[in-house]
Amino acid sequence: MENLINKIKERLHLSSEAEAFLYSISNEKELVKGDVVIRPGQVVKKTYFVISGCLRSYCIDTNGKEHTLLFAIKDWWISDYMAIHSEDISTLTIECLTDSKVIEFNAKELDEIHTRFPEFESYQRQNLERHVVNLQMRILNQLQLSAAERYDLFLEKYSDIEKQIRNFHVASFLGITQESLSRIRVERAKK
Amino acid sequence: MENLINKIKERLHLSSEAEAFLYSISNEKELVKGDVVIRPGQVVKKTYFVISGCLRSYCIDTNGKEHTLLFAIKDWWISDYMAIHSEDISTLTIECLTDSKVIEFNAKELDEIHTRFPEFESYQRQNLERHVVNLQMRILNQLQLSAAERYDLFLEKYSDIEKQIRNFHVASFLGITQESLSRIRVERAKK
Repeated sequence: MENLINKIKERLHLSSEAEAFLYSISNEKELVKGDVVIRPGQVVKKTYFVISGCLRSYCIDTNGKEHTLLFAIKDWWISDYMAIHSEDISTLTIECLTDSKVIEFNAKELDEIHTRFPEFESYQRQNLERHVVNLQMRILNQLQLSAAERYDLFLEKYSDIEKQIRNFHVASFLGITQESLSRIRVERAKK
Repeated sequence: MENLINKIKERLHLSSEAEAFLYSISNEKELVKGDVVIRPGQVVKKTYFVISGCLRSYCIDTNGKEHTLLFAIKDWWISDYMAIHSEDISTLTIECLTDSKVIEFNAKELDEIHTRFPEFESYQRQNLERHVVNLQMRILNQLQLSAAERYDLFLEKYSDIEKQIRNFHVASFLGITQESLSRIRVERAKK
């Protein structure tokens, strides 16, 4: 929990009351590789802050093919925010790719922090502004970059986990086949 | 300007002071088809709320090919938020696809609304949460849907402007060639 508290304190004066509230609604969990924390079709109540390890969110298309939305590593949040926001059931699966430590929150309880401690409004708005920019970058990169260039960006961003996760996870994040990914890796190894 | 004020009032009690502030920093403009409001390489200071018409933001890759990030129609905002947020120069072009009416704001002045009128924090956080969800949906759709399915979604979302904008704009938004788009349209016309 200290990780999250320290991360918040980098940009916000955290009152002892707000800190106590965060502790009171948090639930630290140790997860094992393969654990699934959210399944398609369920009501989504939880959101997760990653202390260590790696979780993945993905959907499965009508042909049974997986498409990865996110790899969440240290200091990232992960949930099915589409489901939470629309108050609909989940379309995503969220699974642990490695043994992981997370802090679990009830998303509604966590949302209350904005009314109880309004200083979180500005903090969270700025987080979301940065998140919007990152998502716009990913959309543009998906449109304009070659698969090899997108793989290079992936390596920059996820250098710590690249060796721990499987080829088809990376391919499903980049939107390419495993064969294409293998070709790119062979090319990169030659350089 | 009434459009924007009414849109805000749907979800927020807008004080007369905040309304006056918004008026004081706004600049209504009539733009003509072909006008370019942001060019690559420039410092980005402005953000635009669309009253009528359609603006497009796009980037140009190293091969000179255009990739469309957004079509902004009535009640949408458009700018190069990646540049504004990183305080870097623009990588996007923003042009008018049709004669348009917009409200131009200086992005920094508009941002001041959060400190002057803190009730805007929660309003804007919720806007951004919705925006994040929409961008995540677009990423998943780009990964999991066929070009024809993405075209159908485009038609749903942009039914008002589809006939006014050119084939290569739509193709560059969907991430497909104009030839593929033509084939999809022929197939759709047969149904």
